[in-house]
Amino acid sequence: MTYCVGLALEQGVVLLADTRTNAGVDNIATFSKLTVIEEPGERVMAIMTAGNLAVTQAVMARITEGAGAPESDEPPMTLANAPTMFDAARLVGDAVRDVFKHDGEALQAQNYGFEASFLLAGQIKGRRLRLFQIYSAGNFIESTQDTPFLQIGENKYGKPILDRVAHYDTPLEDAVKLALISMDSTLRSNLSVGLPADLLIYRRDALAVAARRRINEDDAYFRVIREGWSAALRDAYRTMPKPPWPMG
Amino acid sequence: MTYCVGLALEQGVVLLADTRTNAGVDNIATFSKLTVIEEPGERVMAIMTAGNLAVTQAVMARITEGAGAPESDEPPMTLANAPTMFDAARLVGDAVRDVFKHDGEALQAQNYGFEASFLLAGQIKGRRLRLFQIYSAGNFIESTQDTPFLQIGENKYGKPILDRVAHYDTPLEDAVKLALISMDSTLRSNLSVGLPADLLIYRRDALAVAARRRINEDDAYFRVIREGWSAALRDAYRTMPKPPWPMG
Repeated sequence: MTYCVGLALEQGVVLLADTRTNAGVDNIATFSKLTVIEEPGERVMAIMTAGNLAVTQAVMARITEGAGAPESDEPPMTLANAPTMFDAARLVGDAVRDVFKHDGEALQAQNYGFEASFLLAGQIKGRRLRLFQIYSAGNFIESTQDTPFLQIGENKYGKPILDRVAHYDTPLEDAVKLALISMDSTLRSNLSVGLPADLLIYRRDALAVAARRRINEDDAYFRVIREGWSAALRDAYRTMPKPPWPMG
Repeated sequence: MTYCVGLALEQGVVLLADTRTNAGVDNIATFSKLTVIEEPGERVMAIMTAGNLAVTQAVMARITEGAGAPESDEPPMTLANAPTMFDAARLVGDAVRDVFKHDGEALQAQNYGFEASFLLAGQIKGRRLRLFQIYSAGNFIESTQDTPFLQIGENKYGKPILDRVAHYDTPLEDAVKLALISMDSTLRSNLSVGLPADLLIYRRDALAVAARRRINEDDAYFRVIREGWSAALRDAYRTMPKPPWPMG
């Protein structure tokens, strides 16, 4: 499985993706699930993927290189030339549908589900910053000020902390903390999500990536977060009062 | 859906179950998912249920009243007379298989899954305290000192805190806190889990229930836990250091 989280906030975007893929528990590997398209001053797009790796790679080939695009005299639309973020999201959705048309039946014949989902964030010069989640049916939703984060993959372990503290006006630096805490909760409880993790930070209207970082087990800051968060949870739980009821 | 958690610890058992059932989001209701069989000085058993309500109620009828038990001159085995906890767990498993035999095909014909799982805890005079999880196939596992908690239903939201701090030697009072925190995380993130919650506390070798409590929205202690935990998480997140990397 996978865990990816994206926050689209007043100040910009924070994206975090793990890198574990597995076909059963005895066949795990590391694949980056975060792809960044950057043309400084013109556009920044970043896409994170979850689901069947063959499906997501086929989709990525379509939307980054035009592989499998319908025959045409013009160069195919890709994330590098999509005129708007909405067009880019639709491009991802159409690519998923194309892959489903090509592979869906064969997968189903062997009882494999067609699973793929995507978080697409970015901004094109003169347009607004947007964050979309694209489903395996090719339809998509967008984050809002009320719900400024979206998740794909193993989303449940890391959701409670986001539900409690993620707000549209959360500063980017705090959003990085939040994303890492959410990832840590998932890593601890689910073996199918694994380090390293890929982090991307984009400041609204910058039209260039602010920071991109691969976080390993020995990343000093992530260690501080992991250990600090564990200690803080244990302390918090200890300081809660005991039940006031008679307990036998 | 449902969330039930059981901890089997050195000092005894803590069980906590929500009470929401739903058939779609527009048909929700309150059903107790915790049933207690108590014969003071002789036996205490408690069972929590998750899954298709028609299935779990049929199983409960079988194991508490003998409804649907095979014809025999002797009274049917129920939780009230099962000679050991292992027999009781097997009784639950057999009952699930009977219900599957009776209803499985009809459910499948309408594309309903056969979903049912159970946490069974208890102690019989002269025997050890045990906690079992019984699956929809009727097979079961038991908690151990290494893994002293089991969960059924929507288990992911509330698992990180248990993974971090639940140990076999956790005192019962702390285990109540833990169960409530775990429930709170689930309630906040998943609409299909709802209050009131049913709590049961059993002290090892007491052969009588130590405490049983229905926890509503306005339960003063649960409010303290919910608000205190939220505040503690927000504080903990605020006190984490900011990322030391350049961020554009």
